[in-house]
Amino acid sequence: MARLLAIYHIRCDARSADERAQAIAIEQSVEMPLAAIDDTHVLSEIVGRVEGVREIGSELFETRVSLSVETVGRDAGQLVNMLFGNTSIHDDVVLHDAEFPDETAAIFGGPRHGLDGLRQRVGAGRRALTCSAIKPQGLPPAKLAEIARRFADGGIDYIKDDHGLADQSYSPFAARVTAVAAALRGSAAHYVPSITGDLDAMRVQIAAAREAGIDTVMVAPMVSGVSNFQRLVADNPAMAFLTHPSLAGAARIAPPFHFGGLFRMFGADAVVFPNYGGRFGYSAETCRLIAKRSLDQRAGLRPCVPVPAGGMSRERVAEMLEFYSTDIMLLIGGGLLEARERLTAATAAFVAEVHGWKAR
Amino acid sequence: MARLLAIYHIRCDARSADERAQAIAIEQSVEMPLAAIDDTHVLSEIVGRVEGVREIGSELFETRVSLSVETVGRDAGQLVNMLFGNTSIHDDVVLHDAEFPDETAAIFGGPRHGLDGLRQRVGAGRRALTCSAIKPQGLPPAKLAEIARRFADGGIDYIKDDHGLADQSYSPFAARVTAVAAALRGSAAHYVPSITGDLDAMRVQIAAAREAGIDTVMVAPMVSGVSNFQRLVADNPAMAFLTHPSLAGAARIAPPFHFGGLFRMFGADAVVFPNYGGRFGYSAETCRLIAKRSLDQRAGLRPCVPVPAGGMSRERVAEMLEFYSTDIMLLIGGGLLEARERLTAATAAFVAEVHGWKAR
Repeated sequence: MARLLAIYHIRCDARSADERAQAIAIEQSVEMPLAAIDDTHVLSEIVGRVEGVREIGSELFETRVSLSVETVGRDAGQLVNMLFGNTSIHDDVVLHDAEFPDETAAIFGGPRHGLDGLRQRVGAGRRALTCSAIKPQGLPPAKLAEIARRFADGGIDYIKDDHGLADQSYSPFAARVTAVAAALRGSAAHYVPSITGDLDAMRVQIAAAREAGIDTVMVAPMVSGVSNFQRLVADNPAMAFLTHPSLAGAARIAPPFHFGGLFRMFGADAVVFPNYGGRFGYSAETCRLIAKRSLDQRAGLRPCVPVPAGGMSRERVAEMLEFYSTDIMLLIGGGLLEARERLTAATAAFVAEVHGWKAR
Repeated sequence: MARLLAIYHIRCDARSADERAQAIAIEQSVEMPLAAIDDTHVLSEIVGRVEGVREIGSELFETRVSLSVETVGRDAGQLVNMLFGNTSIHDDVVLHDAEFPDETAAIFGGPRHGLDGLRQRVGAGRRALTCSAIKPQGLPPAKLAEIARRFADGGIDYIKDDHGLADQSYSPFAARVTAVAAALRGSAAHYVPSITGDLDAMRVQIAAAREAGIDTVMVAPMVSGVSNFQRLVADNPAMAFLTHPSLAGAARIAPPFHFGGLFRMFGADAVVFPNYGGRFGYSAETCRLIAKRSLDQRAGLRPCVPVPAGGMSRERVAEMLEFYSTDIMLLIGGGLLEARERLTAATAAFVAEVHGWKAR
């Protein structure tokens, strides 16, 4: 029976590394003393197996634990549960990565559109994609729609909801989507509304979005639950999905695996993550690995668009394109909104710089 | 308009504390430069407000940030998003606690049964409740049912699924529930199956459980998504809900608030959490605060049963009752299963000790 490989980084001293690795293998599989198990199938197949332990830094150990794919089945939530459920509570362990048999990747299916699909939607060729966000929350739909129209007039590709926009009384989802879609009619820009709530509410929102002609939506999988994200992706094959990292910091999952590994495998066409040098603490190396992991050839999955964001500005466009290349979506939100009455012009300047950029 | 108060602990130096607090207030509300906002309602009501910053330790600051309840609406996912969505990605910030207006607590409703309801179900009076878990995963339904029967013969109150048991091919949910319910027929023990997957799958499982006469189920809200948990609680008022801490990433949301605050408010009747001195690193003080927060008088919410677990043994029963008092459910899984062929006797000894315990 095929096995998947979970890779953990453990902060501990050299004497306890082997024991900690073995404890994780048990915690993430049978969660009971092996001495109390007499079933031979369970002992040989279901119990997690330590495949190796090595020192990778001072008091830092990497362990590779293999788990039976039988324990996962076909559910994204159960995959996350098996990889990191209880072990997430140990604050000295990070889920660094995992390697899946191709059959596991095929069960989830990965991006249905991905980099190529998101470029085709806006006729972008090989250049980088552009994105901004309508905000602040608290504005009524008409005002948010007006901001969206000004982004569109500046020539931006995708206009997403701020992830704080949900279904609040001051801009109910249906009214917002109707207003923004109407404001963008005739423009090339694609509106990406944020889908929130329980699975029923999310379905109603996606139906309303589709009704308004929208073909791309945003979901925060760690808030919605990854199983529900998996279900929405499977049930809406024509819709592209952008993921938001909200609450993604609450469990210690290494960002390249979290965004480029898990979210991509579950069907994200584009993954928003905090860029280095912005408001969040990710290093340039972490961001490079997130982008690489989102785009690499893996188990027949389509590449997924990296979307570095979080305090980005027009001044950094050239640097970011240099760093990431053009297989990317550049997202600038507040950095454009600061232009206030000059929003369309600032957007047009951002768009011109991205479209005109040539690698040196 | 009413406001809720989010309380964060930030590791930083004294010079940057005020600035960090202000940055969190903006991140968790409008997420854009205030200079770019001209709407007076947004500036006065929607922007997060720093209500205070104080030093509580060396390079450790507590800040209280108030947020408009308008931004939350009626959705548990949006509440978590507003409290900690992006800020969870800052690894030097902990969501320590939050204070909600009574109207917010009333929207979610808290435990529908809670401590009193779970005691009544098993006729327990004021004593502590007892619980164990069927495992390991990998066993077929008949073998799991046999283990459940032996726990029941020992007189245990609640028998939960190991949280690794989902809907796997080796013990599909429906077959497992049927087998265990049949094995427990005529016994006083209540089986608590683990409900997993997307919201549709969870609904099918709850319906199957109800069909089999089951009145208590287990959900891991951080895996299922808190909005879906909220929905299941609202749609199944006769069912009691036990929460599992899988993926609780509890290092970053302070455990007393996570389990006794959020999970309880969203409707958990009982919350499983890692006990001190077991396999996880929670301190005794943390556990005391979790129990207190689960049980305290708050906004008219029913008390929720604390369920300390994770490597517990019969040897610790008296110590735990001394520490927590009897407003508790004692959960011993592997520690009983180790008795193997003497499982019923070990269970009976555990049960006798809990039933016979008198505070000194």
